[in-house]
Order: sequence, then structure tokens, then C-alpha cells
Amino acid sequence: MPNEHLHALILAGGRGTRFWPRSRTKHAKQVLEFLGNGTLIQQTVARLEELVPRERIWILTNEHLRAEIARQLPGVPKRQILAEPAQRNTAPPIALAARVLHDVDPDAVMGVFPADHHIGKPGAFRKILRAAYRSAASGHMAIIGIQPRWAETGYGYVEFPEGRMTAGSLEPVEIVGFREKPDPETARAFVEAGHFGWNAGMFFWRADVFLAALREHLPATAALIESLPRFGARTFTAKLSEIFPQCENISVDYAILEKARDVVGFAAGDIEWNDVGSWNAVHELLPKDASGNATQTEALFVSASGNLVHAPGKLVALLGVDDLIVIETPDALLVVRKDQAQRVGEVVKLLEKRKRNDLL
Amino acid sequence: MPNEHLHALILAGGRGTRFWPRSRTKHAKQVLEFLGNGTLIQQTVARLEELVPRERIWILTNEHLRAEIARQLPGVPKRQILAEPAQRNTAPPIALAARVLHDVDPDAVMGVFPADHHIGKPGAFRKILRAAYRSAASGHMAIIGIQPRWAETGYGYVEFPEGRMTAGSLEPVEIVGFREKPDPETARAFVEAGHFGWNAGMFFWRADVFLAALREHLPATAALIESLPRFGARTFTAKLSEIFPQCENISVDYAILEKARDVVGFAAGDIEWNDVGSWNAVHELLPKDASGNATQTEALFVSASGNLVHAPGKLVALLGVDDLIVIETPDALLVVRKDQAQRVGEVVKLLEKRKRNDLL
Repeated sequence: MPNEHLHALILAGGRGTRFWPRSRTKHAKQVLEFLGNGTLIQQTVARLEELVPRERIWILTNEHLRAEIARQLPGVPKRQILAEPAQRNTAPPIALAARVLHDVDPDAVMGVFPADHHIGKPGAFRKILRAAYRSAASGHMAIIGIQPRWAETGYGYVEFPEGRMTAGSLEPVEIVGFREKPDPETARAFVEAGHFGWNAGMFFWRADVFLAALREHLPATAALIESLPRFGARTFTAKLSEIFPQCENISVDYAILEKARDVVGFAAGDIEWNDVGSWNAVHELLPKDASGNATQTEALFVSASGNLVHAPGKLVALLGVDDLIVIETPDALLVVRKDQAQRVGEVVKLLEKRKRNDLL
Repeated sequence: MPNEHLHALILAGGRGTRFWPRSRTKHAKQVLEFLGNGTLIQQTVARLEELVPRERIWILTNEHLRAEIARQLPGVPKRQILAEPAQRNTAPPIALAARVLHDVDPDAVMGVFPADHHIGKPGAFRKILRAAYRSAASGHMAIIGIQPRWAETGYGYVEFPEGRMTAGSLEPVEIVGFREKPDPETARAFVEAGHFGWNAGMFFWRADVFLAALREHLPATAALIESLPRFGARTFTAKLSEIFPQCENISVDYAILEKARDVVGFAAGDIEWNDVGSWNAVHELLPKDASGNATQTEALFVSASGNLVHAPGKLVALLGVDDLIVIETPDALLVVRKDQAQRVGEVVKLLEKRKRNDLL
């Protein structure tokens, strides 16, 4: 496989309100450090760069985060860190990236990666990546399916042919189709069936293959993206600001992948994938004391179990409390019961309603 | 009653570790503001001074707190704010105060008051005070019994004669005796019997009457206190530092009152007495929202009930949690379940063990 055509696109435009009060508009989840070895986007780059060096890593983010991301990733050329002029789900930014990559390298093979996931076994992960890139280089659209560990209703699923989802197999399998986030019963059925994988938002294809699929399945957006001048041209940014907000606000799964023929899947083995979806996930990933308490700051746990504490520069004492998440910043403090951690976004919505931009 | 002989002694030497992280060695409970209208010692002085002006209010505290108390009580003459050279329970400090008051006014009638209690109805309280002072002026030792509102095991009790504990009565009643902190069954029996009052640590007597009782019942300490030069003498402080640590470490209840004859009681009516014994009491005393949440700082309560929050200069969001106490200071944060609030002192002990003097 001619490695010099492999590119990585990291989608880093999200906000991650469920990580308030640490996540803010200018310090979204992907630029925060949760696990003590770099921020999520730094980890994402670190586990890719053995395969795709920083010179071919591209990042799509927004104006709020661009400077911080550039600061955190000194090795990634600045012109490869692009700010989306508007939030348009995943299809338009990926289309934009495909167009840009095709401009700079007509043989570009691109992998698409979320900026804010955790993968505990990057070595095993890279094995799958190599296979997926190889498959993409040969003209397929490829996707990774994560072996489901429970009947999650918050993810989409990838359906493999029955009996053909072999964890860790490096052979591409033509997938049956995509399933949107299921209800609990359906999710249980998926897990029992054994041939449905979590869709972790990682995709692989040649830029030209994607652009062709785009023309076929999302022609209006395709036309807008094609109207852009060549990447690097003086007028590129101005034109992008003009056309991007007119693109359809739609996910790449829904707009392209569900309709495309010839999509192949790779079932990831035990790569310890975690989408770091809420403070709960951080608690799961951190080392814990004998009572299940986790902290990377200073805390005393007295008759307390199952808690997560983060409060830099401050001693936190938890007494007689269980399963709490306690997160402190200089201007805010969150205390939430672990089984309610999915609801942290509600606090952010309340603050928006009250126009507390200082806390957003 | 010749009012000019009435003096008030406020005992303000305690530490109040159950109010950590707000209470510290140099900012003990009595110099903290919990309820929004002055610190506890300021409130104590405010409700006394209609009866006993600041010129005759005396305060016994320790070296750590003396400066802060003087700052908070500008009207109290500085020489009347005395620092105990050592912690010796209540008998020695009261003996010292009796000796000092007798020096400055041989006819002194003194009332002894804890610095750190709350009284919701100071008018009703002062009515009882007047009666107690009057009784003391005529030679009795007098004590106030608080109508018990539940079978508390953390207080001592004063036994009135059966059928003679009339709430709010201004007639002195010779009491039967004192009872130490009871077990739960005994406490229930006291409350049912209806003639046992909580001992709130408020005492009234002539200074000379007390000194005579001291000589009779605690002669060693009496001799040490008598060895002091006259209050105001150049050598007073040095001698005090020498003799005070040699005094017996014993409570005035146990050393004197339980043995004294002729102790009279007054049963307080509805004065809304509260000893502010833990963060629970602060939660009880503060106004609450419809879900029972209390705060005097900025807080968002989402699916949260029965909580107390204090975190100046910081927005606190509580989500899906009930009956928590959340107290924040610049260097520490406490989260404790309400029914465990009595145990906050354990955290302080742990910090002492770890030599974290910065947090004590």
C-alpha cells in the first residue's frame, strides 16, 4: 500500500456539553485532558501518527477551538486545521475535506476519526486501521464495527452478514446495512444476534470515491462543494464561508453510507474503545481505589465509594456519599449522581437560557 | 434590679470542627456568618446588648481567635476580650472570669453564654434573661432549661420538679438535678416526663457566689485562680499563663452545678434555640426553595432536593442529588450526606494526622 497517500481527517467540531463545567465553548471535550496523558485530540493524533504522520493529518473544527487545537498539536501544519464556517453535522465537513484532499493529492485515501474517543489498545487498533485503509485504497468504502459490550441505545449499529462478524479479522466483509440508534429491545436483539457492531464513526475511502458517492446521493451539497476554488487559492476561505452554511445539515451515515453500495466492514477485536460519552466513562477509565473512588486531584474519601472527583488545587473531602461525580473549575462546581451524568447537558441549556455566557 | 452590675461572659474558645472547611483554627464557628445577619458571636452580642451593654460584655477565647473577635466586635473594650492560655473545658475559664469581674465590680452579677448558638426569638429570650439575672442578683445560681423538641442524646438535661417546668414562666424553680447526655431510651423518657429541659450552657450568678462555690467544690483550681494578682495589674497576664494550664480540665456543670445547693431553673418558652451543632442545623435555619434546597450563594438545583450549598463566587449545579451538604472554600471542598454531617470532625482529624495545617 503506497503509504504516502494515506491521510487522516479528525472531526473536532463538537462541544461536549456533558463535560461541563470543564467543557466550554472554547475548551470543548476534545481539547481537555481526562486521563492524564494528553488531551483527547492529542491522544487521537498520537495513536494515528505511526500510520499517518502529522504532515498528512487534517483537522476540521470551529473558530472557537482552532487556536487551541493548533497550540496542542504543534506538528500538524496550521493550514490543515480548518474551521467550519457553520455546524452542519458530518456529511458537509467530510465532503469539504474530501474535496481539499483531492485537490492536494488526487490519489488521497482518507480515514475519518472522531477527535474525542479513547482507545485502550492502540496497537490492536492500528492493525484494523491498516486493513481498512488498504481496503479503501482498493476502492471500497470501509467502516469499523465495534464488538458491542452491552445493549447500548445511544449508538448506531453496523449489520454484518450473519456469522461473518469476526472480531479482529483483517478481511473486509460487505456489510448488510446500517441501523439507527435502537430501542432497548432491539439493542438487546442486536447484541444477542452477534453480527451487529457499534458504529464508532470511523470511515475509510478514496477522496474521489467519496466525492462520486456525494454527487450521487447528496447532489446539492456536492455542487456547492465543487463550486469551491482550488484549496490554497486566495478566494478559498471567502467562498467556503459563503457556500458551507448552504450545505445540508445531515450525517454522513444517513446521507451517503446507508445508500452506498459496496461498503465493507471490519469488526474490531478488543481495542478497548470508549466514546468518553459522559463523566461516567471517565470514572470507568481512571484507576480506582479499593472502594471504587477515582481522582487525579487531591481527595479524601471517608465512608465514600464509587465517586469521581476532579478539583485542581483544592482538597476535596467526600464523607458518607456514594456514586457521585464532583467536578470543580475556578468558576463552577458540578455535583451529579453517576446515573444522571447523561443529563449534564441540561445544566448547560439552563445556563444558555439565563444568558450566562461566562459559564458556557 | 441595679442593671449596672450585670455582666455577660461569652465563652468563645471552641473550634467547631464540624463546620470544616469553613471553620478553621483562626476562623472558628463562632466568628463565621451562616445565616446572613452577622457572625454567630456578633448575633450573640446583639441579642444581649439591650440588657447588657458592650461595656460590660466579656469574652473568653483563645490566642488564635482573639484578634478576629476584637475586629468583629468594635464596641467591646479590648481588655475585656481575654485569651485562655490553654484549653481547660468550662470551669476554669468561668472561674477566671468570675475572679476578674469580682475585681472590677464586687457586686458583679454574671451571665454565661455560649458564643455560637442561634436564638430565633431574642425578645422572648431576653424576658427569661431578665428573670434569671434577677434571681442571680438575689444570690441564687440560675440556669435556663430549653423545652426539648426531640429526644436528643447529644445534650445534658436539667431536671425540674415534676409538674414545675412551665415554659416561659419567670418564677425561679429549685431544680432537682443535672443529667449527663442520656442514651436514646433515657432521652425519650425525659421528653415524655415533661420536666426535663436541655442544658444550653447558660448560667447566672453573682461572681462572689460562684467563687465561694468554687472554693467548696473545686478547691485546687480555686486556689490557683485566687493566686492571680488583681485584674489590670502588670503581672496579671504572666501569672495567668503560669497557673491556667494547672487548672482542672473539667466542665462547670460537672464540677460546680451538680454539687451546688440552691440552683434554680427557668424553663425557656418558644425562643427557637438552636445550638448550630452541624451543617444540618444551618440547613434547617436557612430559607429553602420548594424542594427543600438552601443556599446563600449561586446554585442551580436540577432534580435535586433537600440540599445545602455554600460556595461564594462560584456557580454550583446540583443534578439528581438529594440531601447533600456542599461547602466550598478557596482551598477545600466538602461533600457530605446530611445524615453524616455529625462526622465532619473526622475529616479534620484525618487532616491533623496528615499534618495538613494549611487546611486546619
